[in-house]
Amino acid sequence: MPSREQIADAVNRYISLLAKGSADDLVELFADDAAVEDPVGGEVHVGRPAIHGFYSGLTATENVQRECELVTLRVAGNEAAFQFRLTVKAGGGIVIEPIDVMVFGEDGKVTATKAYWSPDNVTQL
Amino acid sequence: MPSREQIADAVNRYISLLAKGSADDLVELFADDAAVEDPVGGEVHVGRPAIHGFYSGLTATENVQRECELVTLRVAGNEAAFQFRLTVKAGGGIVIEPIDVMVFGEDGKVTATKAYWSPDNVTQL
Repeated sequence: MPSREQIADAVNRYISLLAKGSADDLVELFADDAAVEDPVGGEVHVGRPAIHGFYSGLTATENVQRECELVTLRVAGNEAAFQFRLTVKAGGGIVIEPIDVMVFGEDGKVTATKAYWSPDNVTQL
Repeated sequence: MPSREQIADAVNRYISLLAKGSADDLVELFADDAAVEDPVGGEVHVGRPAIHGFYSGLTATENVQRECELVTLRVAGNEAAFQFRLTVKAGGGIVIEPIDVMVFGEDGKVTATKAYWSPDNVTQL
């Protein structure tokens, strides 16, 4: 099982990459057969190619400034739950504040992510 | 599927009952075959009798004052993720601040709870 420190490091790297990373960087955090449900209730992206495609939507536009901040982190067992604040400065810009849950495999890779947010949690700047 | 309002109401009732309710009250929120993993990585309490037993540990001592406050709530699909602060004033007292995830069934009952916290998230008063 990954240590608490490994899990916390992976979450912090995820937050950092949401701000400054590429889809190539982000997909490296995930196991080959990982599942990403973002938001919960929406499409589940299964496997690295699908996950890469999902994050490409966020990271494709290089001249759009992004900022991301970890608000709270809870690590329990081989999982983490965390609240964060993602700001995307396209046009006026938006702020989105999800709570995410991640499950980690033996090797410290993310095997599942579920992101809890709705339009209620998106603010126009 | 339960509405966003039904889910939010159920979470708020859970928070209220953690402060002032009995195990009998709390177990009413759950489906017959619900599973409660609190904390994640620990024992999973499956079914209402086991869940009743779990909450009896919290609510058994009537002269212990409890307070509970919802910090953040995210509703997505038929699930909710929320951070809360539970204060238990036994002796000096403790404050515990988990992030919980709940899954709801068609009838609005909780079918699964996972509570993300560790000793790091418990503060002595």
